Formats: sequence, C-alpha cells, structure tokens
Amino acid sequence: MQEVNQNLAEEAGLNISHICLPPDSSEDEIIDEILKINEDNRVHGLALQISEDLFSNKILNALKPEKDVDGVTDINLGKLVRGDAHECFVSPVARAVIELLAKSGVNLDGKKVLVIGAHGSLEAALQCLFQRKGSMTMSSQWKTPQLQSKLHEADIVILGSPKPEEIPLSWIQPGTTVLNCFHDFLSGLFENGIPKKHDIEISRGQTPKAVDVLAKEIGLLADEIEIYGKSKAKVRLSLLERLRDQADGKYVLVAGITPTPLGEGKSTVTIGLVQALTAHLHVNSFACLRQPSQGPTFGVKGGAAGGGYAQVIPMEEFNLHLTGDIHAITAANNLLAAAIDTRILHENTQTDKALYNRLVPSVNGVREFSEIQLARLKKLGINKTDPGTLTEEEVSKFARLNIDPSTITWQRVLDTNDRFLRKITIGQASTEKGYSRPAQFDIAVASEIMAVLALTDSLRDMKERLGRMVVASDKNGQPVTADDLGVTGALTVLMKDAIKPNLMQTLEGTPVFVHAGPFANIAHGNSSVLADKIALKLVGEEGFVVTEAGFGADIGMEKFFNIKCRASGLVPSVVVLVATVRALKMHGGGPSVTAGVPLKKEYTEENIQLVADGCCNLQKQIQIAQLFGVPVVVALNVFKTDTRAEIDLVCELAKRAGAFDAVPCYHWSVGGKGSVDLARAVREAANKGSHFQFLYDVQLPIVEKIRTIAQAVYGAKDIELSPEAQSKIDRYTQQGFGNLPICMAKTHLSLSHQPEKKGVPRDFILPISDVRASIGAGFIYPLVGTVS
Amino acid sequence: MQEVNQNLAEEAGLNISHICLPPDSSEDEIIDEILKINEDNRVHGLALQISEDLFSNKILNALKPEKDVDGVTDINLGKLVRGDAHECFVSPVARAVIELLAKSGVNLDGKKVLVIGAHGSLEAALQCLFQRKGSMTMSSQWKTPQLQSKLHEADIVILGSPKPEEIPLSWIQPGTTVLNCFHDFLSGLFENGIPKKHDIEISRGQTPKAVDVLAKEIGLLADEIEIYGKSKAKVRLSLLERLRDQADGKYVLVAGITPTPLGEGKSTVTIGLVQALTAHLHVNSFACLRQPSQGPTFGVKGGAAGGGYAQVIPMEEFNLHLTGDIHAITAANNLLAAAIDTRILHENTQTDKALYNRLVPSVNGVREFSEIQLARLKKLGINKTDPGTLTEEEVSKFARLNIDPSTITWQRVLDTNDRFLRKITIGQASTEKGYSRPAQFDIAVASEIMAVLALTDSLRDMKERLGRMVVASDKNGQPVTADDLGVTGALTVLMKDAIKPNLMQTLEGTPVFVHAGPFANIAHGNSSVLADKIALKLVGEEGFVVTEAGFGADIGMEKFFNIKCRASGLVPSVVVLVATVRALKMHGGGPSVTAGVPLKKEYTEENIQLVADGCCNLQKQIQIAQLFGVPVVVALNVFKTDTRAEIDLVCELAKRAGAFDAVPCYHWSVGGKGSVDLARAVREAANKGSHFQFLYDVQLPIVEKIRTIAQAVYGAKDIELSPEAQSKIDRYTQQGFGNLPICMAKTHLSLSHQPEKKGVPRDFILPISDVRASIGAGFIYPLVGTVS
Repeated sequence: MQEVNQNLAEEAGLNISHICLPPDSSEDEIIDEILKINEDNRVHGLALQISEDLFSNKILNALKPEKDVDGVTDINLGKLVRGDAHECFVSPVARAVIELLAKSGVNLDGKKVLVIGAHGSLEAALQCLFQRKGSMTMSSQWKTPQLQSKLHEADIVILGSPKPEEIPLSWIQPGTTVLNCFHDFLSGLFENGIPKKHDIEISRGQTPKAVDVLAKEIGLLADEIEIYGKSKAKVRLSLLERLRDQADGKYVLVAGITPTPLGEGKSTVTIGLVQALTAHLHVNSFACLRQPSQGPTFGVKGGAAGGGYAQVIPMEEFNLHLTGDIHAITAANNLLAAAIDTRILHENTQTDKALYNRLVPSVNGVREFSEIQLARLKKLGINKTDPGTLTEEEVSKFARLNIDPSTITWQRVLDTNDRFLRKITIGQASTEKGYSRPAQFDIAVASEIMAVLALTDSLRDMKERLGRMVVASDKNGQPVTADDLGVTGALTVLMKDAIKPNLMQTLEGTPVFVHAGPFANIAHGNSSVLADKIALKLVGEEGFVVTEAGFGADIGMEKFFNIKCRASGLVPSVVVLVATVRALKMHGGGPSVTAGVPLKKEYTEENIQLVADGCCNLQKQIQIAQLFGVPVVVALNVFKTDTRAEIDLVCELAKRAGAFDAVPCYHWSVGGKGSVDLARAVREAANKGSHFQFLYDVQLPIVEKIRTIAQAVYGAKDIELSPEAQSKIDRYTQQGFGNLPICMAKTHLSLSHQPEKKGVPRDFILPISDVRASIGAGFIYPLVGTVS
Repeated sequence: MQEVNQNLAEEAGLNISHICLPPDSSEDEIIDEILKINEDNRVHGLALQISEDLFSNKILNALKPEKDVDGVTDINLGKLVRGDAHECFVSPVARAVIELLAKSGVNLDGKKVLVIGAHGSLEAALQCLFQRKGSMTMSSQWKTPQLQSKLHEADIVILGSPKPEEIPLSWIQPGTTVLNCFHDFLSGLFENGIPKKHDIEISRGQTPKAVDVLAKEIGLLADEIEIYGKSKAKVRLSLLERLRDQADGKYVLVAGITPTPLGEGKSTVTIGLVQALTAHLHVNSFACLRQPSQGPTFGVKGGAAGGGYAQVIPMEEFNLHLTGDIHAITAANNLLAAAIDTRILHENTQTDKALYNRLVPSVNGVREFSEIQLARLKKLGINKTDPGTLTEEEVSKFARLNIDPSTITWQRVLDTNDRFLRKITIGQASTEKGYSRPAQFDIAVASEIMAVLALTDSLRDMKERLGRMVVASDKNGQPVTADDLGVTGALTVLMKDAIKPNLMQTLEGTPVFVHAGPFANIAHGNSSVLADKIALKLVGEEGFVVTEAGFGADIGMEKFFNIKCRASGLVPSVVVLVATVRALKMHGGGPSVTAGVPLKKEYTEENIQLVADGCCNLQKQIQIAQLFGVPVVVALNVFKTDTRAEIDLVCELAKRAGAFDAVPCYHWSVGGKGSVDLARAVREAANKGSHFQFLYDVQLPIVEKIRTIAQAVYGAKDIELSPEAQSKIDRYTQQGFGNLPICMAKTHLSLSHQPEKKGVPRDFILPISDVRASIGAGFIYPLVGTVS
C-alpha cells in the first residue's frame, strides 16, 4: 500500500509517502499506516487518500508535525459512489480527471485511453467510466518499447503517476490528448475532494508541447529559435528578413469598455479567441501578450496569463522571470541611473583636466575618442578627432555635462512592490561628499527602456532610441541624453537578448508571444511591435494575430492606434471590444464594485434595466473604434450569473450601435470551443476590410493633439492646462520634440478624469496638471488631473 | 566589389557595405567607392580594407558622418607583402587567421582546409599560405549537400564570411578545427591591421559547441538539461539521484598566495588545467566557477571568465545575465526586504484584529492557517489549528512580530555598482506615514541568498535555509526569520530555477559549471556545492573536478575546507596553489603594485633576490594547506617578463617547502597545452591520496574557533575582541547559533589584518571589530579590523 515517491525525492529532495486506502478501512487501520510513516525518517510528508466518511481529527492529529512539510503533505477525501458499471471508490484525482475529460470536450466513444502509473482508486474509477465509453490500457512501465508503442496507439494519455516528464514528447502522436493529473494531486489543490479549480491547477493539469516542437509546427527554422528550458524560447529577428516577402496576416486588437476595478477579461478573451481559431476552426493564429510585472504577482492574484481554460502555460514561467527581459531592463535602467549621479559627483569634485583624462584615458600610450565621443564633439561643434588638440575651453565643454540635479527625471527601478522606496534620499554615505538628493524607485515596467523595447523594430533602432533617452536638463536648459553620458553601448549589450520575443503556448497549444509590458499609464501599455511583426509573418496571409491593449478602449486602443501602429506601420483589421454584464450594470447606475468585497445582489441577479442603461458606455467605446475606421466585434465575456435575457440585450444593443457583430463567449469555463462564435465573427469582420486612419497628424502643436484626444475620444468639452503643463509644452516644443505623438496618463475607471463618473460623462473640462516626455520611446505624456 | 552584408542586416538591422580594394587602387578610386556608399540610403556603415600606404585623412573624411555608426564602421589597413609563393595583399583578417592558426598550434602539413565565403584578400593570402603547407577549398555556397560533404572532409574550417551560425554543427566532424574570423573582422577589433588581442576577441574567435552536443558528450540525458540559447544550459538535480551509486571523481581546489591588487590568475589556471586534462591528456574533467557580479563588468575589465587562451566562452554570456540566477536572487532578496518594512508599518498602524484578518483572510467564507502559520503557532506554543478559536492575547502574539527597526540587518540589493545607494533614507513618501529609516543597497552577490544558493544541496534544503534566515531581532531580542514573515514559499519559487547549475564550456570545449558567486568577504566566496557534486558524478571515478577559492589560500581555501566541504561532505584530493613571480617579488620587498599604474622595473626585469625573499609567503600558504592534510601542487603562472632563473627558483623553493610538485604554466598565451605539466602533476598528486581533516570542531565556543583560525592560519599571536564583538558572540550563543562554522571577513592583501604587511607578518594581535551571522547560509562572520 505504501509506496515511496521517488519523483518528488528527485525534484524537491523530498520523500512523500503515498497512501490510498480502500473505502472499508477502519480508523485504526488508517492511523496505523500514519504511525508507520511517523517513524520512517526517510519520509518527509504524506499524501493520504481516504473516504470522506472516515475522516476524523484523530486521523489528522496522528501525523507528526515534522511530516507536515509546507505544500506537500495533503489529505484528500474520496467518496464512495455508484459508477456506471459497479460500485467504486472515486478519489479526487479520478474525479478531477473525469471532469477534465468532460471540460476539454473529448469524446470518449471508441477512443483508446492509456492510463500510466495510476494508483488504485483512479484506475478503478476510470475503468468504471470507460467500460461503456472507450477502451483503456494501463501501464506502470516507463521508457520501455512497450510503453512507446502503447503511447503511439492511444488517443488519450492520462498521466496518473510520477515522472510524466520522462515520457519523450516525440513518443506521443500529434493530436493525442495528454492529461496530467499527477501534479494536480501532489499540489494539494483539492478541497474536500473537489478540485479548487485554481488557475494554477488548470495550468499544471496540461502538459505543454516541447517548445521546439511548437516552433517547428509554426514554421520556425531550428536556427531561428533559442530555447529557454522546455516551454519557452526566444525567436531571432533574422526571421523578419527571411520572410520579408511573405504577406502579413490579419491584425486583431482586443480592447475593452471602461472596466470595473476587477477587470473584464481582455486577456482571457485574447487567449480564448486564438484557441478557438486554431484548435477549433483550424486557422493559423497567434496571441501577442504583455509580460506581467513580477512585483504584483506576490501581492494580489495576477491574471495576465489569462484564466480558467483560456491561459498561457506554464503559468509560473509566464509570471516569474520568463527569459529575464524585465531583469535586463532593470539592469540597464539602473546602470544609467548610477551613471547620472556618478557623473555629477565627478564633475563637482574634479578639474576639467582630470575629468578629460578619465573620459579619454591613455591606453598603452594611445589616446582615442570613442565613436560616441566623436558624435558628442560634432554636437558641440568641435571638429577635431585627435584628443591632444582640444583647447582648454573645448576640453571643459567636452568633459562637463553640467547636469542640473533638480531636473533629473530618470529614476531607479525594481521589479518588486516596495512602498518604502517610493520616496528616498540617496548619496548619504560620507564617500558621496554631501551630494545627497531626493530620489525614488519606480516599478521596472515603468522604465522608459520598457517602452523602448515595446516600440522598437530592430537592434539598430533600439540602440538609437536608447541613446536619445533624455534623463535631465543641463544648467542651460538643454536636454542631457544617454548618449551624452556615454552608456548607450552598455545599455544595448544588456538588452541584446531582451529584444527577441518569447514564444510560449496556450492550454490548447496555440502559439503565444509574450514580449514587453510597458505601463498602460505613463507608457502606451501594448506588447511589442516586434512580436506582432514576426507573428504576422508566421501566421501567413489567411492567419490571425490577436493582441491586447491595456485598460478601456479610450486609453489602450487609442494609444495602440496613434502610437504603436504609427511606430510599426501595421494596419489593424478588427477590434474586439470586451464587455461584461457586470461592468455594464455598473455604468447603468449599479452600486460600486470594489476588489475584495463581495458583489452586491444587483450583480448576481438579473437586472435588465441596469444593463440597458449601462450600454451607453459600450456604445461610446464602439464609436471611438469607428473614429479609426476599423470594424468592431463585441465579445461579451459571460459569467455564470448572467441570464439569457441580459446576454441577448447586450448583443442587440451593441449591433444597434454599429458593431459588426456581438457574441457571448464562454472561453473561461470551457476553453477555445467557448469562443468559436467570436472567432467566426472576427473572421467575417476581417474579410470586410478596414479603412484605418490616425486620429491626428503628429505635426500639429502638442496642445492641439491633446485637445483632439480629449474631445473626440473622451468626450470632453475642452482641456485646461496648468502653468506647469504649459511651460513644459513650450520647453519640449523649443527642444524640437513637438512632433511626437501623445500618450495620455488618465484614470482607466472613467472616460473622464474622475474615476467615479461612470457611463458616458459629458460637459467636463479635462485638466492637464503636467506634461512629461519619453524621447527614446518617442512620445509626450500629459498627466491628466492628479494621476501620478 | 561592393557587397551588401545581409548578415548584419538580420542581426542588428544594419546594412554594412564591405569594400576590399586591391593594393594598386588609387586614392581617387577609393574615394569614389566611399561616395557611392554615402549616397546609398540602404547602407548604414562601411567596412573598408585598403593598403596602409594608401590611407589618408582625405579618405577618412570622405565618409558621411551618419555612416559612422558606432561599433560597425571600420577601416582596416592591409599590407602589401611578399608571400611564400607570390606577392599578395594581406588583409588584417587574413593576418589574424594566420596568427590564430599559429597560436592554436594547428599543424597545416597535409591538412585539408575549407574557407567559406571568404572575400578576395583573405583568399589570396591563404592560398599563398597553403600552397606549400596544405590543400585548400573555397566555397561561397550555403546549406548545400556539396558544402556539407566538403565540411565533412575538412580538417580545418575557416569561416570568412557571414552566417557561420547557419552551418549546423552536426555537419562538422568531431576534431575539426573551426576558426571564425568573420565576427572578429566586423567587431573592429583590429588596430592598424594587427589584432588587439582582447580577451573578447579570442572568445569570439572560437565557435562554441552547441550546448546539447556538449551535454551529450559528458553523459547527460536529454531530460536532464534545460537549454538556454545555444551555449548555456541548466542541469537538473535529478541527475544526482540517477548517478547515486556512481563513485565521485577527484576533487581539486585552486587557491592562491597572497595576491597583488591585480590578481594572480586563479581563474585562468583553473580553466587552463581542465583544458590540459581533457583536450590534451584525454582525462574527463570539469571546471566549477563562480558567476561574476554584473555590476563591476561595466566598471573595470572583468576577468572571472578567465583570460587569454584559457577562457569560458562565450564571454558575454558568462559576464551578463547568464541564465538569470543573480536576477532571481535580487528579486527574492528585495521581496523579503519589502516584507520587513511593510510588516512594521502595518503593525504600527493597525489593530490586532485588523492584522489578524489580513494574515488569515476569509476566502469564500473559510479561514485557514497556512502550513507556515501553523509552524509559527507551534513556535509560539499555541496548539490550535482553527483560526476562530484563538484568544485575544493569542491573536496579538500571532499577529505581531514586533520587529525592532534598529536591529534590521537585511538590506536591499542590486547587481549594479551604484555608489549613491550605499547609504540612503527610505520611506519618505507621505503614504509611509513618517516611518522612514536609514538603509542601504548592497551588491546582489553579497545577499545571504547567494550564500544559501552556494551551500545548499537540494530544493528542500534551500527552502529550509531560506526560512531560517534571520533579518532582525524583535523587541525582546529574539531573532525574526523569513519564516516568521511568511515569505519562504515565495522566495523558494523565485529561486526554483536558480538552484540548477549552468553548463558552459572552455575555449577548448571542456565542460564548465558556472553557479553561484557569493562574496569572498562576508560570505565564503566559493561556487556551489551542487555544481561540484554533479560534476564529480559526471567525470567518473578517474576524472577531475577543478574549482576555485576566492582571494589567498588563507581566506578562500580555509573557508572552502571549513565551510563548503563541511556542508557538502566532499573530500578534496589536491590543492593547486597559484603563484606569480610578480606577487612573490612584492612579498620580497618590491615596490607597491597598484591597479592602473605601470609596473616598476623590479617587476619587469630579473631580480632573483626579491623572488627568493618573497617565497616566504608561498611557503606559509603551502603550510596552511598541509594543516588540512591535502597535497599541494604549486602552479607558477608565467608572465612574459619572467626569466628562466626566476621560474626555476620558485619551483625549487616550493618543493623544498613541502609542495608535492611545482610547475610553470603557460595557459594564458597558448591554452591547455601550456598547462599539461600542471595537469600531469595534479594527476600524480591525486593518486597519492589525501588525509583531509577540518581545522576545528564546530562545537567549540565561537571565540575559540576564531582564535584557532587567527593563530594556525594567519599566524597571529592572539585575537582581541571589541565590546561590540563580544556582546554579539554572547547573543548568538544564547540564541543557539554558537555551533556554526566561522567565515572571517579579512583583507585578502595580507595574511594579517593590515593590507600593507606583505610576506609573512608575525607577532600581531588580530582585532575583531564586530561579529555578524548568516543563519540561513549557516555561518558566523567576524569582521576583522575595519573591513566592511
């Protein structure tokens, strides 16, 4: 009965005893088994399966505390049930497998199912299930030719035991469904015998295809990918050259109505849509998503990987580290920050000559300007190339950046939520000679380097953007750049791998790029141009690339069109606008929705009037999309409390407001097949063709561009600039940055600047409190109201 | 003549025009070519090869500034020379290839050489060279069966053109020499036609084996590695279980004499030794190295990858990011730091009940303690498992850690050299309600988590160590741990991939593990136990694992034996003690040696007396190794200014002092074959067998352990404790940490605490200014003198 689990011993250095007792065991028999474990020093934890009726505190207390290793020991309660064929003890694992089979829509009739290494109760339950529906083989053998041949024959493979990773994926025929219930079992994700259905559990329940197999499936050559572990790979930019003459696929943007603070499911719609397109309609498709910040993952529950049965897997890989892009950004950002303060210190404490010798050192008796220094000399109007020939005045001009510390806009960053770093004083050690100053740490994804990564289209362009980034003004009010500090080369080297998009997959094996995650607030909040460009080549002319814009369409979509599409030159085919009955009820006057507080009954019971009143927000967001000449399909993300009448009403009103189509989606609960109607509607809308146009000409004055967005998109009467904002606009215009597009920093909880104003606010004046600039990324960002 | 370079266009988004002009070109003809480039918008830069005699400022100035893209445009000067067979224009590339051939000791006689995609002047030069020595084929074809068959036939393949990465490595027979001169050429690493011989150039001059090929060669199974890009892989710990019954190989430690500030080459000796063992003596061997901090890489020139012809390649991958381990440590370290301050803030501003509700929230109506909370309850003596049953007093006891902010020892970290973060004030935003406090950022490799990573032997052990880490004391003087803060699970998840060692290779294809890089000062400065354990299994009983201890043997080796070997249970076979004539002269009374200042003539000319006098330090370090019962082989790292008489004297005196053998090494200039004598000596010493013993029993009082090290290793008369140090020792002893080993934080520039005392200082009293503890890593660290 007892079987020491070698898999965990290998994976985590833990021995877990795995006990599964028949339903007729007595309490004493169970306690006896536990006491044996208590005395066995080699065993660190216990996975116990017993009937619910038998469970008692006496049993729970029998286990020695030191066996209760965090996250491993677990007692699962099974149930004695009558199956189709005979009475059987159904363990939680078995129940989860059966549920997974039902959920994934696998038709069992006539299918050959192989259950590998399963323990007693699972086997019994499945035998019970399969006696009528299909044929089943069981195996506890590993790596034998016999197993391989069985694997090849099976339509469905259920991994019910350790070492599923030991099965070479090449053994499994394409098209075979692989269900991995072992990890679920060990993870202790069951509650009273019922799976808790955490996203992480669903994620772990699926074994991803090896990423090199996926890469091959979608037409990548072996030397175009760099594999990171088993389920992630970077894709090289050389592919863009190889497929230069390949026509692009259709380009679909998923945006949303003004959301509740809980979010309305744009990520799950994005993933559900590609699952539907590829796994169910057999059309090539790719999802392009942002990489989430690691910081909040440990705060509230992250949802950027999607959720339910519309997820990117493995979720842990998606949420943590990925391939290190955010870490590279952190390193580059902070290298530049350190260079600024160190330079100020050196200029304050050294002579012109000492500075010059430090900047242009003699190496083996030879002094040379670097390329970047020659560029700086040119900028200063000094037409010399020999370091020895500069006059004293020229040396001083060359060596001193004269940064005004009060104008520094470049902050240090960390990918950790650390409130104590929001405002700090730096430089307080005696070695810094009194040059302390106030400073702050931002979250890493707010770095301008992240925005640069998202908007660049090549290594050369990235290097130029990094070099152009303005970090402060000098004492004459002129901008000081990363190039002036001489660190552009180092920044580029640190970012040389981050520029390559990261390939992953959905729960249903559809390819996904996860690349760049700029803030949707002070930056434009869209994933990378490069990922979209590569994906559009890979899907082919008839295929689809689906990407997502942060926040409501008034913010994310507007920036997607005016900033991202302007940078990339790509033309969108369709906008999918995500709505929920919940958010529409809020816009119709429902009570406030707050994270962590249970929803009021207006949201859990049918209320046609609230829905009808709230559709004004949906209509307005549809009109915004139409300003850009792109057809809109509304995707109603259905929750289990939504009623048929509510669903029908939303779809009807959306179509009346000019949407090409409006369809309910069920991807969260059933995966891609729940979004097939959406996929069909998107395909039709794409065939209709779009007449894409920008909202404004970048050559307009900054103020005019801001006013256009405020009036045409937000519905404001006018804008009002603070003196601070006006003087910044004057300065940027004078510095030659007046022709950049605009990236509004506004609350996402209302079309206006006031989060509490729901529906479609009217007659408001939009206050612009300040204006800032990201010159490397290439936009001006006005701060609306008091948003920081 | 002009050929747009597609490779760069792909790799960097740059078009480089590549011009190679015959030696009889006129100045005007050259300028004409440049002007054509100037007008071609598709071309971003220029690689020009012309004869030295023709070069003029007029030519240089003809190029438009915007074509002068940093790091790409390069003008190389060739020379008109008379070759063996006929007159020929020898380009710098050709010259570099010929030099590489000579350096790598390749005998050309009768060899078949294939030059791929070479441009004119290289072909001409090589034809000239090969007409007598070997046979040569040229090809500008790619991916054709014909090329494949030529590749198979060739003994030497020279990649003289773009896209070398398009050649599948499987096409090249084992044993074939591959010389990649294309990247060298583009990198602009030539100076007046002569290679600058930077380490980076040598590194790029060699094409590494694909890491999956390397993994297979050394017996790793496909599912035991996780590939990261083409030249790095993580190795799974499951291998230790598979090879449990495999006998370990020989375990060799490379340590050094007391060094000059320039370092004496322990890393190059380590790499040269494995290159000699495996590539020349055909004995299995593995080098285990530390991962360098990224911070200093951008300051002074990093050398942790080795140097010259004894390097780990690719050097950029080694020095930057690697597979993200240091980034993971940074994330985990700072998550814990944020948790400390946030917890203090919450405890200061919330009621017991509010804190308790936050810690044990109701999820769907159910409140549960986590495993880690149950452990805390047990620690507090509260034997309850239902959150609803705690008394008010128990709730308060459970919810409040009562951290004393003045005792916080856990600092934030960054992998960036940022002097302005050495001393800061945090928590100054109004949201932090006045709870600001002084703090600091350390360099990431100084995090205790790095020391934990280096000393752990399994995922389970790492989790326990992370949980034990002490971050502060509470107001009663009791230690507060990561477990108390409830973040151990999150730290472990962040570190789950970092625990797997990283596989790379030397210039000669020998396997290398790069794993963990704890500070050699406040930590023990040795690479990971896990890498050593895995490597010892992989090399087999007759193989060798060579690892390196930071600083002089008095520090790095002492910690290796007393801390690392105690943690791992591994027994070392041989110590290789690295010495240089330069350092010995310094110990003999030579003038001071300072980084960045040219060496005095005592160091560049023969001076037998200084060498003889300085050997006292070498003798003392040999004796220290003998305290541990391990045989010593002295490796004299030879510089080009060392004379025969100096070299012989050192070897003679070393052997007289008890070294098993002493041999000069030439790995830096010629690679593994320059260390073959050392490899032979090490092999013989290993067969002699060691009688390893620890220096002290951990059960001794802390003061006694410190005294033992000071007297037996450093040669001190006694130690002297500051009152601060004494009170810390009392506190740690009372808290139950008295039985940990000792990790001395002392200058590495002298055997004593005074860096200026060279040779073998005597009769000194070692001052201990303070004592700290890394409980998770598992050691007490006394601060000697004023070392910080």
